[in-house]
Amino acid sequence: MTAVEAAMRLAIAEAQQVKGSTYPNPPVGAVILSAAGDIVGAGGTQPAGGAHAEVMALRAAGERAAGGTAVVTLEPCNHHGRTSPCVDALIRAEVAAVVYAVADPNPVASGGADRLRDAGITVSAGVGAEEVTGGLLREWLHKQRTGRPHVTWKFATSVDGRSAAADGSSQWITSDAARADVHVRRAACDAILVGTGTVFIDDPTLTARPGGALAERQPLRVVVGKREISSEANVLNDDSRTMVIRTHDPHEVIQALADRTDVFIEGGPTLAGAFLRAGVIDRILAYVGPILLGGPVTAVDDVGVPTMARALRWRYDGVDRIGPDLLLSLVPG
Amino acid sequence: MTAVEAAMRLAIAEAQQVKGSTYPNPPVGAVILSAAGDIVGAGGTQPAGGAHAEVMALRAAGERAAGGTAVVTLEPCNHHGRTSPCVDALIRAEVAAVVYAVADPNPVASGGADRLRDAGITVSAGVGAEEVTGGLLREWLHKQRTGRPHVTWKFATSVDGRSAAADGSSQWITSDAARADVHVRRAACDAILVGTGTVFIDDPTLTARPGGALAERQPLRVVVGKREISSEANVLNDDSRTMVIRTHDPHEVIQALADRTDVFIEGGPTLAGAFLRAGVIDRILAYVGPILLGGPVTAVDDVGVPTMARALRWRYDGVDRIGPDLLLSLVPG
Ligand SMILES: NC(=O)c1ccc[n+]([C@@H]2O[C@H](COP(=O)([O-])OP(=O)(O)OC[C@H]3O[C@@H](n4cnc5c(N)ncnc54)[C@H](OP(=O)(O)O)[C@@H]3O)[C@@H](O)[C@H]2O)c1
Ligand SMILES: NC(=O)c1ccc[n+]([C@@H]2O[C@H](COP(=O)([O-])OP(=O)(O)OC[C@H]3O[C@@H](n4cnc5c(N)ncnc54)[C@H](OP(=O)(O)O)[C@@H]3O)[C@@H](O)[C@H]2O)c1
Repeated sequence: MTAVEAAMRLAIAEAQQVKGSTYPNPPVGAVILSAAGDIVGAGGTQPAGGAHAEVMALRAAGERAAGGTAVVTLEPCNHHGRTSPCVDALIRAEVAAVVYAVADPNPVASGGADRLRDAGITVSAGVGAEEVTGGLLREWLHKQRTGRPHVTWKFATSVDGRSAAADGSSQWITSDAARADVHVRRAACDAILVGTGTVFIDDPTLTARPGGALAERQPLRVVVGKREISSEANVLNDDSRTMVIRTHDPHEVIQALADRTDVFIEGGPTLAGAFLRAGVIDRILAYVGPILLGGPVTAVDDVGVPTMARALRWRYDGVDRIGPDLLLSLVPG
Repeated sequence: MTAVEAAMRLAIAEAQQVKGSTYPNPPVGAVILSAAGDIVGAGGTQPAGGAHAEVMALRAAGERAAGGTAVVTLEPCNHHGRTSPCVDALIRAEVAAVVYAVADPNPVASGGADRLRDAGITVSAGVGAEEVTGGLLREWLHKQRTGRPHVTWKFATSVDGRSAAADGSSQWITSDAARADVHVRRAACDAILVGTGTVFIDDPTLTARPGGALAERQPLRVVVGKREISSEANVLNDDSRTMVIRTHDPHEVIQALADRTDVFIEGGPTLAGAFLRAGVIDRILAYVGPILLGGPVTAVDDVGVPTMARALRWRYDGVDRIGPDLLLSLVPG
C-alpha cells in the first residue's frame, strides 16, 4: 500500500465515524500528508454549519500542510454555503497535491478539482473510489442521482429462510455480535421503518445503541400502517422522535422521507414484501444465523414472483462473518 | 509456506483427485521431497488392490527418495492387506523423514509411525491436519469413528429459503457454476439419495457429470419411498446403478448404505426434513442464489423445531463464492 492509499483508508475511517451526523452534507473524511509523507492531520465532516473534513484536517496539520498532499474521500467542494469552499482552504494552506476518491456529482458544489488545478495544485482522482462508491457514500450518491433516499432492507433469518420458530418465538435467530452490528448501522442511518405488526408483536424501541449505550444522535423512527398503536408502545418513548405514516403505499412512505438519505427497513414480512414488490429497495442486508427452523414463519412471503423467470435478481456485494453468523449484502443485479 | 507445507498442499490435491475411487481404502496423497528439498514424486491411492499413495509417489521418485522426506496426508499404514505395508516401502526407499497430517484411527492399520521411528526415520505429524480432518478425510474419519456413512444434505435455495417459485418452476435457482460444482462433488461421493417425489417431479438422472461428461466411476443412485417409480425414469437409466429403498425411516436407509462412506442427500423437503428430524445429517451444503422468490415452496418444511430453544444449531465451516452464488457449508454446532 502506498502512503496515499494508506491515507485514503484513514480518511474513509474518519468519514465512517461521522456518517449519519452530517446531513445535509455528505460524510467526508480527509487526511493531510506533509511534504515528507507523514500523516499530520485527519478529520471528518462536522454537523451542519460546522467545518468540512478538509478544514478539520488542515487545522490539525497547521503549517505542516504546506507542500504536502490532501487526501479526501470526495472532491473538495467549491461552494459558498454555510461555510466557505474547501478549495479556498486548501489553496490557502499551500498544499502541493490533492487526491480524492470520487467526484462530486452535485452541480452546485462541483468544479473543485478545476479550481485547484487553476491554482497550480496537482489533482488526481480515483484512489479508493470503489470502496467509497459502494460503501461510505453509497446512500448519498444514490440520493444525489435519484433524488430519493437509499432504502436498505435489513432482516435476520435462519439458513432455511425463517424469521421465527413455529410457535412465533424468534429470540434470538442471530448472535449478540450480529445485533451489535445492527446498532452500529442504525446509528449511521437517518430513519428506521417498521410496520404496525412489528410494533404490536415485538414492541421494539428501534433506537441505535452501539456498544450498548444510546447513541447521542438517533435516527427517526417510522411506523407504517393504518392501525392505531398504543401510546405506551416503546417506539413512542422519549429516546428519539417517531413518525407514524398511515398508508400501505411504499411510494408514499418514500415521499414522506424525501429529505432523508439513508433509510432502514426493519419491519416484518408484510412491510418488506410491499417494498420489494414496489421495487424501491436498494440494498438487502441479511443476517443469517447458522440454524434451521422449518415451519410456517418465513422472513418474507409474497414478493410478487409468480415464476422463476420473474425472480428478483440481486448480486452479493459483501459476505462477512459476524461472530457465528453471516452478513450477506445484496444490491440489485 | 515451507517446502513441507507446500508438499502437503500438493499431497492433499493428489488425494482429492482420487477421492471416491479408493473404497475401502481412504483417499490418501503423498509427495516425496529429495534430500535437497525438491519435489521428486507424487501420487494418490489407487482403486482397491492397487498401490497406496506412498508407493505411487516412491515409484515416481525412484532413487531420489533416499535421504529425502515423504509427506503424506494420513499416517502410513502398517497393515498386510491386499498390498504390503507402506511403512516397509518407505523404509526400503531409505527416506530420512516422514511427515503426515493425521494419525490413522484404524487399529488394524495404525502403528505406522512407531515402526518408522524404530527404523530410525524422523517422524512428525500435524502439518495440514485441520484441512485434512475437516475436508479430505472428513467422511472417512467419520466412518472409522462411528461405523456409519457420513451424510451430506445438499440443497439449492434463494436468499429467502425457497426451492422454487410459486408455480413450482425451479430452473435455475443457482448458476451453471454452482451446478458444475455439484457434479464435481457427486463424482467424489459414494451414493446420491432422493425421495420418490423428486423422481416424479424432476425426473433427474442423478449422475456425476464433472466438466459436462459422464464420470467413469458413478455413485450409487438411491430412491427412497414406497411409491413405485416408472421403469422409464431417468434415474433407472444405464449410466449407473440404482437402489430403491421402500421405507420412510432414515435409520433404515443409513443401514442399507452401511458399507458406503460418503452419502449425498439431494431429495426434496420431505426427505431432507425426515433426515434432519432423525439427526442423521453430518453436513449441510447450501447453494444460495442471489435471488428472492417468496411464495409457498420452501427448501425444507418440518425439521421438528417447535420453538427457538429447540432450533437445530449448526456452525459455518465454509463460505465460498461460486460464480454469482454462495456455497455455505455447515457442520453440527
Ligand atoms: N426477521 C426479522 O428480521 C424481522 C424483522 C421485523 C419483524 N419480524 C417479525 O415479523 C412479525 C410481524 O410481521 P408483520 O408482517 O405483521 O410486520 P410488519 O410488516 O412490520 O407490519 C405489518 C403491518 O404493516 C402495515 N403495512 C404497511 N404497508 C403495508 C402493505 N403494503 N400491505 C399491508 N400492510 C402494510 C400493516 O399495518 P396496518 O394493518 O396497521 O395497516 C400491516 O399490518 C413479528 O413476529 C416480528 O418478530 C422479523
Ligand atoms: N432445492 C433443492 O435443492 C431441491 C432438491 C431436490 C428436490 N427439490 C424439489 O423438491 C420437490 C419434491 O419434493 P418432495 O419433498 O416431494 O421430494 P422428496 O423428498 O425427494 O420425495 C418425497 C418422497 O420421499 C419419500 N419419503 C422418504 N422418507 C420419507 C419420510 N420420512 N416421510 C415421508 N415421505 C418420505 C416419500 O415417498 P412415497 O410417497 O413414495 O413413500 C415422499 O413422497 C420437487 O419440486 C423438486 O424440484 C428441490
